[in-house]
Amino acid sequence: MGAPASGDGLTHFDGDGNAVMVDVSAKAETARVAVARGSVVMAPATLALIAGRGMKKGDVLSVAQLAGIMGAKRTPELIPLCHPLALSSVGVELSLDPQACAVHIEATCKLVGRTGVEMEALTAVSVAALTVYDMCKAVDKAMRIENIRLIHKSGGKSGIYEAKE
Amino acid sequence: MGAPASGDGLTHFDGDGNAVMVDVSAKAETARVAVARGSVVMAPATLALIAGRGMKKGDVLSVAQLAGIMGAKRTPELIPLCHPLALSSVGVELSLDPQACAVHIEATCKLVGRTGVEMEALTAVSVAALTVYDMCKAVDKAMRIENIRLIHKSGGKSGIYEAKE
Amino acid sequence: MGAPASGDGLTHFDGDGNAVMVDVSAKAETARVAVARGSVVMAPATLALIAGRGMKKGDVLSVAQLAGIMGAKRTPELIPLCHPLALSSVGVELSLDPQACAVHIEATCKLVGRTGVEMEALTAVSVAALTVYDMCKAVDKAMRIENIRLIHKSGGKSGIYEAKE
Amino acid sequence: MGAPASGDGLTHFDGDGNAVMVDVSAKAETARVAVARGSVVMAPATLALIAGRGMKKGDVLSVAQLAGIMGAKRTPELIPLCHPLALSSVGVELSLDPQACAVHIEATCKLVGRTGVEMEALTAVSVAALTVYDMCKAVDKAMRIENIRLIHKSGGKSGIYEAKE
Amino acid sequence: MGAPASGDGLTHFDGDGNAVMVDVSAKAETARVAVARGSVVMAPATLALIAGRGMKKGDVLSVAQLAGIMGAKRTPELIPLCHPLALSSVGVELSLDPQACAVHIEATCKLVGRTGVEMEALTAVSVAALTVYDMCKAVDKAMRIENIRLIHKSGGKSGIYEAKE
Amino acid sequence: MGAPASGDGLTHFDGDGNAVMVDVSAKAETARVAVARGSVVMAPATLALIAGRGMKKGDVLSVAQLAGIMGAKRTPELIPLCHPLALSSVGVELSLDPQACAVHIEATCKLVGRTGVEMEALTAVSVAALTVYDMCKAVDKAMRIENIRLIHKSGGKSGIYEAKE
Repeated sequence: MGAPASGDGLTHFDGDGNAVMVDVSAKAETARVAVARGSVVMAPATLALIAGRGMKKGDVLSVAQLAGIMGAKRTPELIPLCHPLALSSVGVELSLDPQACAVHIEATCKLVGRTGVEMEALTAVSVAALTVYDMCKAVDKAMRIENIRLIHKSGGKSGIYEAKE
Repeated sequence: MGAPASGDGLTHFDGDGNAVMVDVSAKAETARVAVARGSVVMAPATLALIAGRGMKKGDVLSVAQLAGIMGAKRTPELIPLCHPLALSSVGVELSLDPQACAVHIEATCKLVGRTGVEMEALTAVSVAALTVYDMCKAVDKAMRIENIRLIHKSGGKSGIYEAKE
Repeated sequence: MGAPASGDGLTHFDGDGNAVMVDVSAKAETARVAVARGSVVMAPATLALIAGRGMKKGDVLSVAQLAGIMGAKRTPELIPLCHPLALSSVGVELSLDPQACAVHIEATCKLVGRTGVEMEALTAVSVAALTVYDMCKAVDKAMRIENIRLIHKSGGKSGIYEAKE
Repeated sequence: MGAPASGDGLTHFDGDGNAVMVDVSAKAETARVAVARGSVVMAPATLALIAGRGMKKGDVLSVAQLAGIMGAKRTPELIPLCHPLALSSVGVELSLDPQACAVHIEATCKLVGRTGVEMEALTAVSVAALTVYDMCKAVDKAMRIENIRLIHKSGGKSGIYEAKE
Repeated sequence: MGAPASGDGLTHFDGDGNAVMVDVSAKAETARVAVARGSVVMAPATLALIAGRGMKKGDVLSVAQLAGIMGAKRTPELIPLCHPLALSSVGVELSLDPQACAVHIEATCKLVGRTGVEMEALTAVSVAALTVYDMCKAVDKAMRIENIRLIHKSGGKSGIYEAKE
Repeated sequence: MGAPASGDGLTHFDGDGNAVMVDVSAKAETARVAVARGSVVMAPATLALIAGRGMKKGDVLSVAQLAGIMGAKRTPELIPLCHPLALSSVGVELSLDPQACAVHIEATCKLVGRTGVEMEALTAVSVAALTVYDMCKAVDKAMRIENIRLIHKSGGKSGIYEAKE
């Protein structure tokens, strides 16, 4: 690992073009937070079906929520250059938006460590969204997963990031 | 597992509200195909950076492509009620769209088996998209993952599905 | 792998004492079913707490049920000599027994394949039971997981097994 | 993640009924230990078979012991709301009890970290017990996994727990 | 996935240079076998230590053997373009060679399926070898893993392969 | 876990012959580095094929490199008595040696933690080597994985190790 980082800002390659898991040994352990959001857009009838179950046991949103939390823990296995890390908290919330015909998903991840947890939050949202799709695909194959993005990030040297929403 | 399926079309719940991995024992083994697509939308400068690397070793798209293929194989671990299955083929392609300032992703999964592979194709796209985000987030945190959807599905009793694009 | 099986009935060792994943290549693919049961015994107040949540979103039993289903899929990773296999169905049900101060768990697994699915059903029960413990341990550390056993098994050369309950 | 914890003592739900991986960011890193125990009860002839192999290579107990250690490491993948953590030690011991016709299992897990390791110790015992079942099921399907419980826990704010045995 | 295979014999790339998990849908399910071998070369004193334990419980070879079997099952997670598959048998044998100061490892994998199991056999040998290294590294860091190669392969269209040893 | 360590230097067994994940709770967190190397030896024509692709997208070495990095993260799942740990850096480099008809692989792993990362570096090399084999096996089944060994280790109480090359 002799070559210095590529000069173009893409930190996951060294100067020889080798993909690397970036060295964070020298970074301080700080409290880090990341929040991500995304949506599953669907037919009104599909949303009504989900809403109809929300009052009883076995609702779509609970299954997706749990899948999102568990998915966050799998991030370093899925994303090749992500560091394995010991998340100190994961929360995922889903809500129904009849106006937009969408299920909105928000995930918050926390860590006391040497690297950010944006990918964990974005993965939690993605897995929760895929699970909503899976649970409803028998009635609606045209659902779309939309607008997965980072909302907030704090901790670490690069400071606070807030999305302009 | 005495209770019949819930009557509302959501096949992943039985009549008592228990989530279930649907019984496919009685289904025939047929050749199944699914194609999914999605995009990562980004700043023009970010797209230019990816394009600039595309000619040399260590490009973002190759890493994301491989992550997508490997991600498809993890689908039954990520999506709670998905069946474990032995994919017979996975292909993922990424392309740059300077007009739309986007990386477009398409995944194709195949199986000779008792259940469809839509979730595998959608998961491949999602993981490839998350990997693009991860590789570029040092220069652009405002990227968005957009429009992940099923394009085509064939095989099995429900017949052929083609998205209206 | 020249040595014949150990003569004492323990099929997971060959005659040289090597642990083996038993060769099932020559077995026919048949429909196989296994049912397992177990219980988590707890203080009356703990059971009351679980019962109190059962009516609303976010109940202990739904989380444990999903964990059991997902756990069944991990069986070949956990049990060293289990075959990897493509389960065609997993169902897990939990019920409250105020008399016995227990949560009862039953798992049913199905496969069309060359080997039985007893371990998958037993693993589903175990993981669901551990999840009940995890969700309630803040209020009751003295819970016990009890009586995990095989109830029914059919398919394959060894015929039907029914536990004497 | 705005809603405060549910008021009923079940720490894995927030006030809105969302399951959460509890936030431990603010907890101190302390040395934590947990010990769990359980048993596999079987026919006398099955126990004799295990005992007969114990003197040679390829014994049931060694395989189950290793499975238990490896199982402890998979705890955060199996139990939905468990934190991923970097165990600093895992030990599993199995012993034969001809009187009780049982294999007894004890697991000890240690961590220097922000959360307890009870679930890791209980999972180690469960996976070792399931492995004993798997290794012997060809000769005895009526074995039962019994009395998996926490024996000891220390470290962290809640202090020392000792089971009344 | 329109582009035909690359013309140079490397089947894992299509004509556009995209890595692919090769499509095996059209292949017949046949009985496949693969045998691989490899060695861990070490100091005479290290070999003597392993030999000394071989007679009692807790020997290095048993742990490595089990790790090899379990490793074979993880092949599709480790090797990016390997197909997930349902191995019907895995056997791993280790033997001591005082002459060569080596532990020799042989793995045999079987499958009734659409693709070969060479990678599974080679992975089993590799993981067993790494485990031998891990167990002995406290006394000998200069051990070397040597000569991991395919010995035999049968089943499938390409016919029988026998290494010239 | 009462029995003291076995007296023969094999730290992974206690005095009763039980395999253990060694207790590192009392060790200090220090910066640790390990470097490992290995090679895949092949026919000249195979090496030429790899070299021919190295200039375009979709080369064998990039896929193997990524597999090596991802493989390092799976070490604690593969090697039974390895500690789970949060690697702070992984780098893998492959180079072609036409003289020796070999692909040489070098992996460097770093951690700030309580235990060494030799096994992670050796596993990265092994998985990268297996991936080279997988990508080229359609044209050359006689390739051999050779000379996987530890080159350098620093950090921790046992001091610096340098291989005599």
